Amino acid sequence: MKPTPNSPDLAPLLVFGAHPDDIEFACGAVIAKETRLGRAVHFVICSRGEAGSHGTPDQRVAEASKAATLLGATIEFIDLDGDAHLEIRAAHAIKLAAIVRRVKPGLLLAPSLVPNQHPDHWRLGQLVRDAARLARYGGVQELRNMASHTVAHLLFYAVTPEAEPRDITPILIDVSAPEVIAAWTAAMEAHTSQTSARNYIELQITRVRVNGLRAGVGHAIALFPNDALVLDSLAPLSRGARRF
Amino acid sequence: MKPTPNSPDLAPLLVFGAHPDDIEFACGAVIAKETRLGRAVHFVICSRGEAGSHGTPDQRVAEASKAATLLGATIEFIDLDGDAHLEIRAAHAIKLAAIVRRVKPGLLLAPSLVPNQHPDHWRLGQLVRDAARLARYGGVQELRNMASHTVAHLLFYAVTPEAEPRDITPILIDVSAPEVIAAWTAAMEAHTSQTSARNYIELQITRVRVNGLRAGVGHAIALFPNDALVLDSLAPLSRGARRF
Amino acid sequence: MKPTPNSPDLAPLLVFGAHPDDIEFACGAVIAKETRLGRAVHFVICSRGEAGSHGTPDQRVAEASKAATLLGATIEFIDLDGDAHLEIRAAHAIKLAAIVRRVKPGLLLAPSLVPNQHPDHWRLGQLVRDAARLARYGGVQELRNMASHTVAHLLFYAVTPEAEPRDITPILIDVSAPEVIAAWTAAMEAHTSQTSARNYIELQITRVRVNGLRAGVGHAIALFPNDALVLDSLAPLSRGARRF
Amino acid sequence: MKPTPNSPDLAPLLVFGAHPDDIEFACGAVIAKETRLGRAVHFVICSRGEAGSHGTPDQRVAEASKAATLLGATIEFIDLDGDAHLEIRAAHAIKLAAIVRRVKPGLLLAPSLVPNQHPDHWRLGQLVRDAARLARYGGVQELRNMASHTVAHLLFYAVTPEAEPRDITPILIDVSAPEVIAAWTAAMEAHTSQTSARNYIELQITRVRVNGLRAGVGHAIALFPNDALVLDSLAPLSRGARRF
Amino acid sequence: MKPTPNSPDLAPLLVFGAHPDDIEFACGAVIAKETRLGRAVHFVICSRGEAGSHGTPDQRVAEASKAATLLGATIEFIDLDGDAHLEIRAAHAIKLAAIVRRVKPGLLLAPSLVPNQHPDHWRLGQLVRDAARLARYGGVQELRNMASHTVAHLLFYAVTPEAEPRDITPILIDVSAPEVIAAWTAAMEAHTSQTSARNYIELQITRVRVNGLRAGVGHAIALFPNDALVLDSLAPLSRGARRF
Amino acid sequence: MKPTPNSPDLAPLLVFGAHPDDIEFACGAVIAKETRLGRAVHFVICSRGEAGSHGTPDQRVAEASKAATLLGATIEFIDLDGDAHLEIRAAHAIKLAAIVRRVKPGLLLAPSLVPNQHPDHWRLGQLVRDAARLARYGGVQELRNMASHTVAHLLFYAVTPEAEPRDITPILIDVSAPEVIAAWTAAMEAHTSQTSARNYIELQITRVRVNGLRAGVGHAIALFPNDALVLDSLAPLSRGARRF
Repeated sequence: MKPTPNSPDLAPLLVFGAHPDDIEFACGAVIAKETRLGRAVHFVICSRGEAGSHGTPDQRVAEASKAATLLGATIEFIDLDGDAHLEIRAAHAIKLAAIVRRVKPGLLLAPSLVPNQHPDHWRLGQLVRDAARLARYGGVQELRNMASHTVAHLLFYAVTPEAEPRDITPILIDVSAPEVIAAWTAAMEAHTSQTSARNYIELQITRVRVNGLRAGVGHAIALFPNDALVLDSLAPLSRGARRF
Repeated sequence: MKPTPNSPDLAPLLVFGAHPDDIEFACGAVIAKETRLGRAVHFVICSRGEAGSHGTPDQRVAEASKAATLLGATIEFIDLDGDAHLEIRAAHAIKLAAIVRRVKPGLLLAPSLVPNQHPDHWRLGQLVRDAARLARYGGVQELRNMASHTVAHLLFYAVTPEAEPRDITPILIDVSAPEVIAAWTAAMEAHTSQTSARNYIELQITRVRVNGLRAGVGHAIALFPNDALVLDSLAPLSRGARRF
Repeated sequence: MKPTPNSPDLAPLLVFGAHPDDIEFACGAVIAKETRLGRAVHFVICSRGEAGSHGTPDQRVAEASKAATLLGATIEFIDLDGDAHLEIRAAHAIKLAAIVRRVKPGLLLAPSLVPNQHPDHWRLGQLVRDAARLARYGGVQELRNMASHTVAHLLFYAVTPEAEPRDITPILIDVSAPEVIAAWTAAMEAHTSQTSARNYIELQITRVRVNGLRAGVGHAIALFPNDALVLDSLAPLSRGARRF
Repeated sequence: MKPTPNSPDLAPLLVFGAHPDDIEFACGAVIAKETRLGRAVHFVICSRGEAGSHGTPDQRVAEASKAATLLGATIEFIDLDGDAHLEIRAAHAIKLAAIVRRVKPGLLLAPSLVPNQHPDHWRLGQLVRDAARLARYGGVQELRNMASHTVAHLLFYAVTPEAEPRDITPILIDVSAPEVIAAWTAAMEAHTSQTSARNYIELQITRVRVNGLRAGVGHAIALFPNDALVLDSLAPLSRGARRF
Repeated sequence: MKPTPNSPDLAPLLVFGAHPDDIEFACGAVIAKETRLGRAVHFVICSRGEAGSHGTPDQRVAEASKAATLLGATIEFIDLDGDAHLEIRAAHAIKLAAIVRRVKPGLLLAPSLVPNQHPDHWRLGQLVRDAARLARYGGVQELRNMASHTVAHLLFYAVTPEAEPRDITPILIDVSAPEVIAAWTAAMEAHTSQTSARNYIELQITRVRVNGLRAGVGHAIALFPNDALVLDSLAPLSRGARRF
Repeated sequence: MKPTPNSPDLAPLLVFGAHPDDIEFACGAVIAKETRLGRAVHFVICSRGEAGSHGTPDQRVAEASKAATLLGATIEFIDLDGDAHLEIRAAHAIKLAAIVRRVKPGLLLAPSLVPNQHPDHWRLGQLVRDAARLARYGGVQELRNMASHTVAHLLFYAVTPEAEPRDITPILIDVSAPEVIAAWTAAMEAHTSQTSARNYIELQITRVRVNGLRAGVGHAIALFPNDALVLDSLAPLSRGARRF
């Protein structure tokens, strides 16, 4: 049941991050796995991390670019309101919707909507959710020169344990393959300005190990779907997280 | 990406029902689809419907047997406490666990745990959830002569709208194929003692049409997983319920 | 127990919609029923639907005006930020509060606050909730030339199944009378620019039929109160949704 | 809009209590109000309070009988498993269903299902919910000599603040009339064996005053409906709890 | 186990209020108790109450200043968008974060995030939550001249019963000491422009009495922590709210 | 602020476990910390683990006794219905209540009530919650020869991640001290029959490390209080889980 190239199962994956390291820390192993399976992945980073305690904007852009390469993804940086200054604005959602129309992804990944985390995270998640809808509507003035686009799913990632939604049934993606873990670890380590100060890498590896133990595999990353899943049959449900 | 015969994706499906018509009304179309895909499906009915307002136990057993045949499933009847008398007893869970060990299913289907419905429904759902665990434990005295068995997933069905869990993200199974809907309708109509009095068939077809409209297909049945999903990659997520 | 004209039970109903067809599709049958009972109903539409995939703003204003007439309601259009551009601004809430003070309604209807729907819907719902409070406060500078007004209830409607709040006990309004269904259907069909593309009318009729089956009537529309109900006695509770 | 005698709005009210004083303390003022409006009210008390810290069973039966008279209700005592010994048994639900069929009430009142309270309270609430369904089913062997009966609503009361459900929108019943408060207070004081030790009466009066302040009246008691309300129109919604 | 002066247990308490009387009415008794124990408390009031139905801005500033003095707290007034006009802006969160860095509190108090209350309340709560995070981040341009600061806890207060979060386990602070209740009552009465019109003082005293009865003390105020508590041992858990 | 011996802060801790290793795996480090602080801790184990896949009852009793000694706790074994056979019975709750009256603990620890875990776990949690109430009631026949006893708190532990309640704010107990971790690890390793088959020890250490990272300490165990906390002041809130 491996997806074949050019199948709808390999439509591009578009991933939004509020800061240069959020995607890698939260779900870098999923990216590494998907690119190895042949899926195109594109990162859109909505600040240069200029409000962080460590690292200059230039350093952080360089680190994120290196990490994306290690994961097999392309990357671009856009300006919204700046790090630690993000606001919910219709203009932002429309800007993100234009990127959706340009990239034509099958799937979107964005930070979760749990509000008790970095204020930029949940705001970006909400903007992406709105953008996924606006990308479908034909009459939005600013988007009229691009064809409407409907994504199959918007999935949320959680940068920290507190950011995991409590009201969505998680989907655990098995990322146990050693080369996937290795690529992920390398991508996290590429953020040298961030990893000196706190145990970010350990936190993530540990969280993902707990999920792996739950799923009976080595490591697994939890993603949280915005909408009900639609399946042709029960066939994809041949594995569940019932080990303990 | 069709599952191949003998693949783990086609491990048997074991479905528990509290009364002779519950499975058919709640999710008969899913059964019809799975058996057409080559999956073995077995029904275990835990009463003869003897407390219902219409139909004798013999009639109801005959109706359920005919309906199972129409859906391509095998069927057996077991005695717990009797219709409208079901209680949560360890002995019941162990009895159901023995059936799990005998049938060795990949997936279980059972009524949802929402307590504001027929008292037998949620109690049976809870007994099945307990049974799925007991089937794994090696030392249960009454089960020692049968090999332990672990299912991949326990999925819940909802006989009525009120029985749909509000805290689980649903999985919508596309059952739009005309032959699937036809087999399902025939199976519901096989319960002639039940369908004269109320609009049960219309209720189910209408609910499933609303789900189909949400999913952008003809008809879809919502199932509710007990545990987190485990996937190898994002490939199965190529469709979502985002039409409205 | 029919309400008598001029009783507080017939105080005007003020209904807010984000787009020209939202009110009709979500709860047009409730409007038809209330106007037939003698209640004055006024619609405030907060965009001209200019971002939709179909129909020009002029067409859509004409369609909404026709639909309002068919339902027996008056209608006005106001400008906030425009279709698909609505933001949460204090100035908007104050503008809506001024309308509340002018119309002096007993009841408000607004789109639900569930955030996983069209971004304009839940934002308008939140603005209306804030407006209902601001209409009461005596010192708001922009409102000082109008008398304070307190509404009895704010009720939410859900344009789609996903927009139904899961944490509010619904109130089902019986709209089974054939003339009510006929007026509602005509009002939905008046939106000719919208109904060609998708099964919007079927979606709504089907949803409302499921609710009717739950309530043991032909058709029923679910509304969701923002606040606890206050009753003089248990007398209004003579019917419940317990049919299945 | 006063209900007229013999109208469905005045169908009997059947109230279940786990112990001799639960009904009076939790919602005695609602009883006093309903009997004054002409509704027949019947209490079924499922123990004699023999596990309480104060009062003999005989005393407590006498106190409850006096309190019921003060509130205008009739009363009977039944045996289930005894005070502090109640279990969820099908036979109990069937016994309660037989009482429902005998009394033919329009409305049921029972303790809430919140499990963090006296163990008998939520178990009785669950038994009553099951009984309300069993009373409808035609084929239950033990009930065949009595006609099926369907109640309009099951409403829950909360004996303590902790027992108030957090996921049901409350209905506040205005009990401000001085004669209603007086009858209620007298009924609580009739339980002389209980009121010496703790501030039960003050607790209840204070809770009900907070609800009254919320509703903009003197005193109000919160009840919690098991099911969606069904209304003919918006007319009964002329008052809401929006004072603060 | 009394905290000793200069211990981390007596780090300053910083309390934010949207209007001149919110802090006093919601949790004035907690303030009175803390200042009596030797903790420094500072109030930041984010409007002058100019949209209220009663009192001029000058009156209200004078009343709040008097109340703060009665409670032993210092007070300052800041301008955000004005009473009834508050919006969620990054600039506001940064402004509040600057105050956090200046005052260096151990604990923050802010209005709860429940959105069905005065629109300024929950917006201020959200701004304070964001501010607590921004105060920690080293690179925020506007804050670079002040040292980063991390608070131990952010606790929410509820001005009205409706504002109490339903998904956070409350912490009840025992405020039964007569001198604490007296200081609190005096502080509420200092808001003479507000207390003539409604039963605000009675509402608060009554709410706090219900909590006291739950906790087995005279009076108790419920606060709601934003984050998990961290304790060195189980020793602080020697009292619980289990009286009824 | 160390608690002094004989203070109410050091009242005995009574811990219930469904199987011989549950307490150690779920919260052994908390036990090790409390006994080091001078608190008496007593374990009551409600089966001999006879349904587990590994180990004989005699082995498991010996392992648990050794583990308790390593943690500084006393231990006793009682018979309810046997491993994997536990049912909710009033007689069980009364039996546990008698132990509460005999031990006179300040605090109770029991498995959480989340029903999607080993069926014995949540049932025992519910029985303990009921027992904590029954221990207070003076008139329970079977308990009349023992003085009533009221505990300060009932806290829940979670044997697995799935068993963590999602609707209770956790309390994280700092267990970072090396000697505490060492004692805990030794106690887990004492269950030699269990630790060969699965990664139970790694699962627990990893979970507790994630909590430690959240709390900014080495390791922390999450407990979940059944009731609101009651505090004399804000002093115990000098640490919070706000590190990420």
